[in-house]
Amino acid sequence: MQLQGELDRNPIAAYGTGFLMAHIPGTFEISHRDERSSARTGILHTAHGPVQTPVFMPVGTQGTVKAMTPAELHELSTEILLGNVYHLNVRPGMEVIEAHGGLHAFMGWDRAILTDSGGFQVFSLAKLRKITDEGVAFQSHVDGSRIFLGPREAMNIQRILGSDIAMAFDECPPHDCGFEYTCKSVERTLTWAALCLEQPRAEGQLVFGIVQGGEFPDLRKQCSQEMVSLGFDGYAIGGVSVGEPEDVLLAGIEHTVPHLPDGQPRYLMGVGMMHQILEAVSMGVDMFDCVMPTRFARNGSAFTRRGRVPIKAGEYRLSTAPVEENCECYTCRNFSRGYIRHLLNVSEILGVRLLTIHNLHRYSEFMKEIRSAIADGSFAEYKRNFLTTSTDTWIEQTGD
Amino acid sequence: MQLQGELDRNPIAAYGTGFLMAHIPGTFEISHRDERSSARTGILHTAHGPVQTPVFMPVGTQGTVKAMTPAELHELSTEILLGNVYHLNVRPGMEVIEAHGGLHAFMGWDRAILTDSGGFQVFSLAKLRKITDEGVAFQSHVDGSRIFLGPREAMNIQRILGSDIAMAFDECPPHDCGFEYTCKSVERTLTWAALCLEQPRAEGQLVFGIVQGGEFPDLRKQCSQEMVSLGFDGYAIGGVSVGEPEDVLLAGIEHTVPHLPDGQPRYLMGVGMMHQILEAVSMGVDMFDCVMPTRFARNGSAFTRRGRVPIKAGEYRLSTAPVEENCECYTCRNFSRGYIRHLLNVSEILGVRLLTIHNLHRYSEFMKEIRSAIADGSFAEYKRNFLTTSTDTWIEQTGD
Repeated sequence: MQLQGELDRNPIAAYGTGFLMAHIPGTFEISHRDERSSARTGILHTAHGPVQTPVFMPVGTQGTVKAMTPAELHELSTEILLGNVYHLNVRPGMEVIEAHGGLHAFMGWDRAILTDSGGFQVFSLAKLRKITDEGVAFQSHVDGSRIFLGPREAMNIQRILGSDIAMAFDECPPHDCGFEYTCKSVERTLTWAALCLEQPRAEGQLVFGIVQGGEFPDLRKQCSQEMVSLGFDGYAIGGVSVGEPEDVLLAGIEHTVPHLPDGQPRYLMGVGMMHQILEAVSMGVDMFDCVMPTRFARNGSAFTRRGRVPIKAGEYRLSTAPVEENCECYTCRNFSRGYIRHLLNVSEILGVRLLTIHNLHRYSEFMKEIRSAIADGSFAEYKRNFLTTSTDTWIEQTGD
Repeated sequence: MQLQGELDRNPIAAYGTGFLMAHIPGTFEISHRDERSSARTGILHTAHGPVQTPVFMPVGTQGTVKAMTPAELHELSTEILLGNVYHLNVRPGMEVIEAHGGLHAFMGWDRAILTDSGGFQVFSLAKLRKITDEGVAFQSHVDGSRIFLGPREAMNIQRILGSDIAMAFDECPPHDCGFEYTCKSVERTLTWAALCLEQPRAEGQLVFGIVQGGEFPDLRKQCSQEMVSLGFDGYAIGGVSVGEPEDVLLAGIEHTVPHLPDGQPRYLMGVGMMHQILEAVSMGVDMFDCVMPTRFARNGSAFTRRGRVPIKAGEYRLSTAPVEENCECYTCRNFSRGYIRHLLNVSEILGVRLLTIHNLHRYSEFMKEIRSAIADGSFAEYKRNFLTTSTDTWIEQTGD
């Protein structure tokens, strides 16, 4: 036990000892498997500690999970969060982050970070895009300045950021672009993926490939297989949550996961509705991210077991009840709906803070429940129960 | 010792025992006196615990010290904060706060609260004022609705808020309104003050009278003496920080304090520049409040021992130094100027949060230093040293 403790504190000494293989970044230990679905729990080891899966990763686009301190994220048991190449490259720029020695030191976060390569933002935010085999030339959405981002640039930025998981640079086309364009886009994504693997990385940095292919099962299969043959540390299902209907989203997962290696982590990009997370987990997905809990907090919506609650609604004016009964988060232990409603109505920062804490806590608890249901064999029951008694949309605004 | 501890936990048992008189709200124990000035340290007991003086009270206008949780204020050793009758009466309204059982429960704050009576805001924010002997009719600055606030209304609101210290309702005229108007205003303030004392109070609630009189020494003296003869639990110097030059402000203190009882707390309303606090403390003032540390944080300015630092300035772009070297606040222990500058530039809430924590910490430390300098007989030296080596305005933006 003492030796183990010693090595835990000195991870470099553990490398190559064999019996501590698990501590090498990229090692993915599957702990439990659900017998009636493809759901599994696991631990993904990163250079900044272990990540228990299935995991929900809060989004920290601009070097901060909006309204939260790292200390508050620790309290919520957050083990990994997201950063964005596109945004951080525009502001503050790599010179600033390099001066700080990387994104962890810059934002004061000592656990794992996954960085999105910028592909998604280039195709959703940037103006005047011009795509070539080398990458994409575009105008910044902030000040219109000319920027070029390709596989080399995205990987170099992620090396400087020093994220634990870097994403390959991909093309993420809209869901209704047709077969021919999707085909071309898959080809380009694969070329870029191969280039990404050739670039230098930060120490211990993992790289995940992103599977595209839109709503076309054959393209999804082909892209998955070729991506896997390139040999990444994990694989993401991309091109989802881009405006397609839910059945298309779920089909996209179904047509991708079976072609990915069982022993490596699978990440569904940008999907965050709770019932969608449940479906994806049962199909074998391990990682999720979404702006929903933080963005909805800023709009005054609380996630509860009974559904979303519009805290600004007039009916909560006199409410002394917490956002959610029996919730153990700092917000629910200390403040009422009536108080938070007031704060939001007078635009006080604390209102957004308190709802963000609650929403991220709710997501964290949700993932914990999923993990323990898988571990104790009750996942099917948990899922059925959630889908019938909980709601993922607005609750009826009757009573309190 | 054990008995003392027992009684500390059971303050009601302590009432009337004589030897624990100090725990009765309103008791003001003077602990140390400076030999070379009128400065003193003390403990003011309130229904929500002791307050060490001289004290700086953070401002929580709308039921929250902007951007801060009560837990964070605890960490900064905050023992008392300010609430505002005018704002809380407009939003959320007394019905909401009454439903919660008072302002403490509403905002989750278990230590002392002083509430401003609304006089200052009625005269600085409200539109279409009409003043009578009964009070002031005006339009809300939020939605233009008609509101009436007078001594009875202000005291009733403060009773519902349940603040530990209620302020009498006063007229706070502009500094350049002339002798005749100031005279009339003092008369009205005294009439209202007497009426305030007749109103019902919350349990354990103290009431402070406010001395007006503008820049006229005789009026200050007369108002002080008549206010004292009415018999309040403490006295405030009002009609300051209303646009007058600094020498007029300091003269106002000088012409008021000598006429106030030595054994009761003195509160200088709305004054928060550090060198002004030092001057006022040396004249015998015990309590201060100001929006400066919180408001300046929102504008990107940090208070440091060397002066104010405009964190958004371009020169801090690559700075990995904390806001202030050797500062022990959460912000300085964990984050750099470069990071906070980035957060402010991209309008992330965390930037404002981190600067607010630092600025309030700086004020808290400043008051601690003042108290211990008075206690150990070095106040004159501390004051001289502060006024020569520190600066209360912008520091030179060179180097760093």
